Amino acid sequence: MTATDKVLSAIDANLSASLDRLFALIRIPSVSTDPAHNEDCRKAADWVVEQLREIGFEASARETGGQPMVVGHGGAMPGNGVPHVLFYGHYDVQPADPLELWETSPFEPRLVDTPQGEQIVARGACDDKGQFMTFVEACRGWVDATGSLPIAITVLIEGEEESGSRSLGPFLDSHKDELKTDFALVCDTGMWDAKTPAINTMLRGLLLEEIVVTAANRDLHSGMYGGAARNPIRVLARIIADLHDADGQIQVPGFYDGVEELPADVKAQWDGLGFDEKAFLGDVGLSVPAGETGRSVLEQIWSRPTCDVNGIIGGYTGGGTKTVIASKASAKVSFRLVGNQDPFKIRDSFRAFVKERLPADCEVEFISHGASPALQVDVSGPQVARAAAALEAEFDRPAVMMGCGGSIPIVGDFKNTLGVDSILIGFGLDDDKVHSPNEKYNLSSFHHGTRAWARVIGALGGA
Amino acid sequence: MTATDKVLSAIDANLSASLDRLFALIRIPSVSTDPAHNEDCRKAADWVVEQLREIGFEASARETGGQPMVVGHGGAMPGNGVPHVLFYGHYDVQPADPLELWETSPFEPRLVDTPQGEQIVARGACDDKGQFMTFVEACRGWVDATGSLPIAITVLIEGEEESGSRSLGPFLDSHKDELKTDFALVCDTGMWDAKTPAINTMLRGLLLEEIVVTAANRDLHSGMYGGAARNPIRVLARIIADLHDADGQIQVPGFYDGVEELPADVKAQWDGLGFDEKAFLGDVGLSVPAGETGRSVLEQIWSRPTCDVNGIIGGYTGGGTKTVIASKASAKVSFRLVGNQDPFKIRDSFRAFVKERLPADCEVEFISHGASPALQVDVSGPQVARAAAALEAEFDRPAVMMGCGGSIPIVGDFKNTLGVDSILIGFGLDDDKVHSPNEKYNLSSFHHGTRAWARVIGALGGA
Repeated sequence: MTATDKVLSAIDANLSASLDRLFALIRIPSVSTDPAHNEDCRKAADWVVEQLREIGFEASARETGGQPMVVGHGGAMPGNGVPHVLFYGHYDVQPADPLELWETSPFEPRLVDTPQGEQIVARGACDDKGQFMTFVEACRGWVDATGSLPIAITVLIEGEEESGSRSLGPFLDSHKDELKTDFALVCDTGMWDAKTPAINTMLRGLLLEEIVVTAANRDLHSGMYGGAARNPIRVLARIIADLHDADGQIQVPGFYDGVEELPADVKAQWDGLGFDEKAFLGDVGLSVPAGETGRSVLEQIWSRPTCDVNGIIGGYTGGGTKTVIASKASAKVSFRLVGNQDPFKIRDSFRAFVKERLPADCEVEFISHGASPALQVDVSGPQVARAAAALEAEFDRPAVMMGCGGSIPIVGDFKNTLGVDSILIGFGLDDDKVHSPNEKYNLSSFHHGTRAWARVIGALGGA
Repeated sequence: MTATDKVLSAIDANLSASLDRLFALIRIPSVSTDPAHNEDCRKAADWVVEQLREIGFEASARETGGQPMVVGHGGAMPGNGVPHVLFYGHYDVQPADPLELWETSPFEPRLVDTPQGEQIVARGACDDKGQFMTFVEACRGWVDATGSLPIAITVLIEGEEESGSRSLGPFLDSHKDELKTDFALVCDTGMWDAKTPAINTMLRGLLLEEIVVTAANRDLHSGMYGGAARNPIRVLARIIADLHDADGQIQVPGFYDGVEELPADVKAQWDGLGFDEKAFLGDVGLSVPAGETGRSVLEQIWSRPTCDVNGIIGGYTGGGTKTVIASKASAKVSFRLVGNQDPFKIRDSFRAFVKERLPADCEVEFISHGASPALQVDVSGPQVARAAAALEAEFDRPAVMMGCGGSIPIVGDFKNTLGVDSILIGFGLDDDKVHSPNEKYNLSSFHHGTRAWARVIGALGGA
C-alpha cells in the first residue's frame, strides 16, 4: 500500500468530518463586496488560519486595505527535487440575493439527495469554499495518514476575489520573497463534466465599470415636466442599446484590438469535444445562442470577448406606479476580455463612447470595479503532466485541456509579479449555479476533488 | 360688511388653527400605492370624514375594492337658483422615496421661512392635502362666520389618485344618483405663478404600463454564460431606445392618431404669456428642452403627448459588483395623452411594439396601472365666469386660462359617468416639488387659496 493509497483511505474514512468543516466555513456569510459583512470576512479568514494551523502550517491572517489575506506555510523543506507550490483559493463569496429565490437559507448548508447524487446547497458551496477546501482536506489527509506532506506548500487564500481583488496586487508586490515558489496551483475552475476532470488553459480577462447618468437636479413630476425634461433612464437605455450591433458585435471603438482567431488545432479539439449546445442552454431555459453570429457556443463563452450589463436601476421601482422623471440612473457593465485586449485602453474607449452619447444637461460618473487582461496558461512542463496523470488516475479518464469563460486575474498577477506559472484544477460543474440562488457543489466533486488533490500532491512529490 | 367679507375675516382669524388641521392630516402617511400603508389611508379617510362632520356635513368613508372613498353632503338645499356642486380632491399621496433626499421627515410637516415667504414642507403639503383642505377650510369659514353655506355641496375625496384611481370608475357608476350635481369643482392643479390665479382648461390623459422581460430561468454567471446567454436588461434597453427617434417623436405605430395642432388663438395666447423656458428648466438644473424638436416648452408639457420611463430595474443593484446575467428586467412606462388619443388602442399598439422586439428565448409580462384619455374642459358657461371673477377679486389679477401637463382622469369620469363639467382651480406652483423630495406648499397658496374658495362659494351662491 503506497503512501498515497493510505492518504486516500484516510480521506474516505474522514469524509463526514471533512463535510462538517466545510459547512462550518459556509455558515460564515463572508460577502466581500458588502461592507456590512466585513466582520464575517474577518471571521472566515481566522477560521481558515485555524484549519491550516491544525495540520501543522504556520499560518496567519494579514491586514490589507480591504479584507484580510490568509497566508500559510507548511509541508516538506523545498529543494533537492522537492517542489514548492503556491496554492490559491478565496474564502469570500458573492452576495446571496435575490434571497426570495433560495429554497433554504443561503448560508445554512444542506446535503440534498438528487438523481445526480448528493449535492451540497449553499452560497459558496462551490465558489470557492467547497473548491479550495478540497485542497486543504487533501493536505489534512496526508498529515493524518503519513504525518507529513511530500512537497513544500505555501497557501494563499484571499477575501476579495468576488469584489475585484483590490488588495491582491499590492500584497503580492510587498510579499514577493515570502510567496516566491516554483509554480502555483489554483482551485477555482471546473471539470469538463461530472465524470471528466479538466485543466484550464485559457482565462478571459474582466473589465468592470459602473456608469451613473444624472440629468435634472431632482426627481420631477412627469406630468409637470414630461416632454420637456431629459430622462436619464432613456439616455442610459440608448447607450446600452448602442453597445452591440445586430450581429452581437461590440461597438466600442478598438474593442477587438488584440483578439485573435482560435488556432485551428484548438478549434478542432473543441469541435471534437461533442459539446451539447442545446443541453448547455436548455439547462437554463434558453435555446438560441445570443452572442456573435456565426460563433459556436464554446467560442462565445471561452475564446470570444463579451460585454454585458449586470445590473441597472433608476426611478421608482417599488410596487404600483410613480409618475416621476428620475434625476439619475445607473448601470453596472462588465467586459470579458481575451487574447491581448488591453483592459485600460478599452476602459478609456468605453468611457469616451458613453460621453459621446450624452445629450445636453446630462452628466456621467464612472466607477471602476476592476480591470484585468486575459490569460494563456503554459501547459508544457512536467508538473502539468504529473497533475494530469494524477487526475486521470482518480477519474479513470484523461483530463481535458479546456478554456474558461470566467476570469481569474490572480493567474496574471502570479505570472507578472511572482514570475510563477499556474496550473488551474477545479471540480465545479456548469450546473453548480455559481453566483445564482441555490448554488450547489456535488458531494462527488468535493470527495473526488479531495482525493484528486491528494494524488496530485503525491505525484508532485514523486510518490 | 357682506357675508363673504365676514367669512374672509373668520378665515384670516383662524389661519393658525387651519394650519394645525392640515398638519394633522399630513402626519398620516397615506401612500395609496403601497399596501403597507393601507391602514394609514383608512386613518386619513376617517380623519376627513370627521372634519366634514364638524362643519355640518353628513359624511362617511365608503368601502371600495381599494382605499376608502370619502363622501359628504352639506350646505344649502339645491334648486331655486341654489347650485349643487361636487367638490373633488384626494387624501392619498405619492411615496416619499428617495427618503435620503428629504431635509426632514416627509410626514412631519414644518413651516419654513424663505425669501419667497413661509412654506409648508412635507409630502402632500401641496398634492393634494394642502390643496383640497383650502376648500374644506373655506366651507368651515362660511359655517363659522354665517352658520351656513350658500350653495349645496357634495364632497368626494378619493384615496387612490396617486395609484391609478382603480376604484373610482366603479364607484361613480354605482353612486350616479347620489353624486349627480350641476357641475364639479376640482382642486388638484396650479396657479399661473405665485401672484396670478388660473383655471385649467386642458388635461393630458395617462397610460401607465409596466413591462417585465424574462430570458433564462435563473440568474447566470456572466463568466460561464456571458456571450451565449440572452441578457434581458439589454433587450429592455433596446426596446426603450426604440420608443423615440432622434427628434423625440414617439415610434409606437398610430401613437399620434387623434393629436391635433394647437388652435392658432390658443397658441397665440400661450406665446403671449411670456413663459420663461430658461427659468422653468433652470429651476431643476436643466437648460435645453428635451422633447419634440421645434415645439415650445409649453406645448411640450401642455398640449403634446409624451412617453417616459418612470422606473427601471434588473440584475444586481447593490454595492460593488456581481458578474451576473439577470433572469429578468422590468420598466415602468407612462404615456401622457392629448386630444382624442385612445389610451386602449395605444396600449395595444405599445404591447405589440414591445413583442416585435423580443428576441428568441425572451418572454414579456405586461402589467397595466391605468389608462385615461385627455380632456378639454368647457369654459363657457356662467359658473366659470363667476369663479374667474372671484379669483380675480382675491388675487387682484385676471385668472389665466391655462393648459396642464398633468392628468386628472376624474374630470373625464365626471363628464362621462355623471354628465357634469368640471372647473379646475388650484393653488400649486411649478416649484412645489410635487412627487419629489421636500415637497412644499406656499403658506400664501394655502391662505389665499382658502380665501379664494370662500369667494367662489359666495359668488356661486349669488352672494
